[in-house]
Amino acid sequence: MKQAKNPVITVLTDFGWRDPYVSSMKGVILSICKNATIVDISHSIPKFNIMHGAYLLAFSVPYFPPGTIHVVVVDPGVGSERLPILVQTKNDQYLIGPDNGIFTLVVERCGGWKKIVKLENETFFLNEISTTFHGRDLFAPVAAHLANGTSIEEFGSEISEIRQINVQEPIVRRNEIEGLILFTDSFGNIITNISKSLFEELKISTGSQVELDLATNTRDIKFCQSYAEVEKNQFLLIIGSRGLAEISMNQGNAAQALNLDLQGRTIIIRKKRIMKRKKKRKR
Amino acid sequence: MKQAKNPVITVLTDFGWRDPYVSSMKGVILSICKNATIVDISHSIPKFNIMHGAYLLAFSVPYFPPGTIHVVVVDPGVGSERLPILVQTKNDQYLIGPDNGIFTLVVERCGGWKKIVKLENETFFLNEISTTFHGRDLFAPVAAHLANGTSIEEFGSEISEIRQINVQEPIVRRNEIEGLILFTDSFGNIITNISKSLFEELKISTGSQVELDLATNTRDIKFCQSYAEVEKNQFLLIIGSRGLAEISMNQGNAAQALNLDLQGRTIIIRKKRIMKRKKKRKR
Amino acid sequence: MKQAKNPVITVLTDFGWRDPYVSSMKGVILSICKNATIVDISHSIPKFNIMHGAYLLAFSVPYFPPGTIHVVVVDPGVGSERLPILVQTKNDQYLIGPDNGIFTLVVERCGGWKKIVKLENETFFLNEISTTFHGRDLFAPVAAHLANGTSIEEFGSEISEIRQINVQEPIVRRNEIEGLILFTDSFGNIITNISKSLFEELKISTGSQVELDLATNTRDIKFCQSYAEVEKNQFLLIIGSRGLAEISMNQGNAAQALNLDLQGRTIIIRKKRIMKRKKKRKR
Repeated sequence: MKQAKNPVITVLTDFGWRDPYVSSMKGVILSICKNATIVDISHSIPKFNIMHGAYLLAFSVPYFPPGTIHVVVVDPGVGSERLPILVQTKNDQYLIGPDNGIFTLVVERCGGWKKIVKLENETFFLNEISTTFHGRDLFAPVAAHLANGTSIEEFGSEISEIRQINVQEPIVRRNEIEGLILFTDSFGNIITNISKSLFEELKISTGSQVELDLATNTRDIKFCQSYAEVEKNQFLLIIGSRGLAEISMNQGNAAQALNLDLQGRTIIIRKKRIMKRKKKRKR
Repeated sequence: MKQAKNPVITVLTDFGWRDPYVSSMKGVILSICKNATIVDISHSIPKFNIMHGAYLLAFSVPYFPPGTIHVVVVDPGVGSERLPILVQTKNDQYLIGPDNGIFTLVVERCGGWKKIVKLENETFFLNEISTTFHGRDLFAPVAAHLANGTSIEEFGSEISEIRQINVQEPIVRRNEIEGLILFTDSFGNIITNISKSLFEELKISTGSQVELDLATNTRDIKFCQSYAEVEKNQFLLIIGSRGLAEISMNQGNAAQALNLDLQGRTIIIRKKRIMKRKKKRKR
Repeated sequence: MKQAKNPVITVLTDFGWRDPYVSSMKGVILSICKNATIVDISHSIPKFNIMHGAYLLAFSVPYFPPGTIHVVVVDPGVGSERLPILVQTKNDQYLIGPDNGIFTLVVERCGGWKKIVKLENETFFLNEISTTFHGRDLFAPVAAHLANGTSIEEFGSEISEIRQINVQEPIVRRNEIEGLILFTDSFGNIITNISKSLFEELKISTGSQVELDLATNTRDIKFCQSYAEVEKNQFLLIIGSRGLAEISMNQGNAAQALNLDLQGRTIIIRKKRIMKRKKKRKR
């Protein structure tokens, strides 16, 4: 990688802010690459939740400029067999972290990968490597050396694939779409894997009512273009900022109101038949 | 705006740190303006709490250097009629966000405004604009283009005023000041809208006892210059770092100890009459 | 201090992220030193917990490059007698904050100090100094002036020592080590003050079982090299990333599982006697 003037290195972990972990990683980065701009993606990933980390990466990384280096440490298998890797994506972003599936979605969103390297050249690690904190001892220094212009090949030998986590695709039927809930955000928006194009396929247009089937309960909600189209504290369905359908509540918390265990749950969005009312004759 | 060498862009939201929202905004900023220094004001504003955001801005922004650009996203009306705006203050700071009243206090603290512009030139937005996330699609790119040197006029047409939130002024009577509670901080300090000068007006000096009237209860507390003037866990009244009266507890949490719903509550600070003890004669 | 091109200033406080305190400090720093790179160590120190702050510093600061300036505000005695100080460590890092013991451990880890200065030259403070917020009015501007190249001597007169907090050393007996619990991290890892070398002294090697005595209960656990050596949700003993013994649980939360008040608690690690089984004869 050519050395950038102000290389951007982002950090995503499940470490939280209370411990010395995030800051010691930043110290290591700045010790090796003085002019790095460090950006926190998040340190509030639920501990060991690889899937949550995978979504965050997928929905953040594409907005960063080419050449950005992303250090990712959600690493329940630290010190075990899982490989430490470096991935160069098709759009020239760099992902550094454990090969545990966390890069599945982001690599897809970045158009695939150009090169994957197994981190094995200890020249680029800290002198002493703990078995519990590869973020500081291995991933952070590799990121900083990469930012300094070290070429990818020097970090280790090329490998041919990354571990994938399995993500189910939505199923489209005659008058319904079956998808699943990816995660809920801190506003209580419930993000599904159902993209905008599927609504077009079924000719469900904004402004119409749809039936939302969550197995335990079914309700009619409006398919909106903005939150303000329904009253405060009313449910709605909306294409969110990721291009995916979300169940929301205007100025309220939809996830809380539903009071269900949501992540991974199946959801069906059903087109409402337009009933032609028959005139009933009085007898 | 002339292009700065290291433009400072701050970000204030109610997004929290768990979701991809803050980081995708930062990605957008760095994609457009590579050398921006991004500073987090806070992402812990209670969801949709415009008033809380307004206080944070008012008490942070004045400490930043001229030319600083502040992106603000507490935006319950996103996608609705509320305007996206850019405000240049009298002391040459720049505020970007929704016109929902959140800029009321900070504009006042910055000596008023020089210019207000309605953001309407889509050249400076992302290509696709969601209806739910103007922070990423509209405010962040505008901030970055402004940092790059785009002049204010290019973003849209000038408008003549911003929306104001109503903030009541304290009332001074013969021997008391009636004010209200603005907010409580994470230490449990209870910040009022009563400024130092009103104490001088009533000749209440530090070291004296005052009566604190919170409608449901009344108590005598000491008007101090530093927390250490009372014992640990004792209440005190103090002019805080904003020049406003605060009810505090030495090394304790005053808000918790009072156990009241505080924000917006009326508070009366009453001068204690100095009783001249009459000698009582024994009969 | 010679002016650096990109001076690094870190900030460690117990302020949290909800209030305008951290951001106003950053505003002050950037107003004085435009090209500072500001890094958050943490703002999640439990309020007024000097010991917790001392550990965070000790385990973060050594990873930063020489010349880094650390501003520390865990300051229950603000406005009282405690001195505001600036410490230059042996490895040329700079510590700025209240002299309340919080620098004890980090100074030790940095090889001691070169110089300690009492901050008294008001030229380098903000014009108006509150009695409640020296972080913004005094420590932040001093840090920024130091980053700009002001020499240490200009800030005030030299003093000969800092306040120390008392930290007990472990005791090694014939077949056991008595130490104490320093703190628990957000993963539930329980960090002790027992270093790797004491295990070597007692010839306790990884792979063996040891007895863990917490006074209220005793249990046998494995002394491991990586978490994955025990089953999920099993306790283990491991030398953590600080070179200190930690009680952990593979992919679980050890502190929560023990359900004890841990900080400062005495802990004994006892070598297991290898029993030679006697053959029992049947009668």
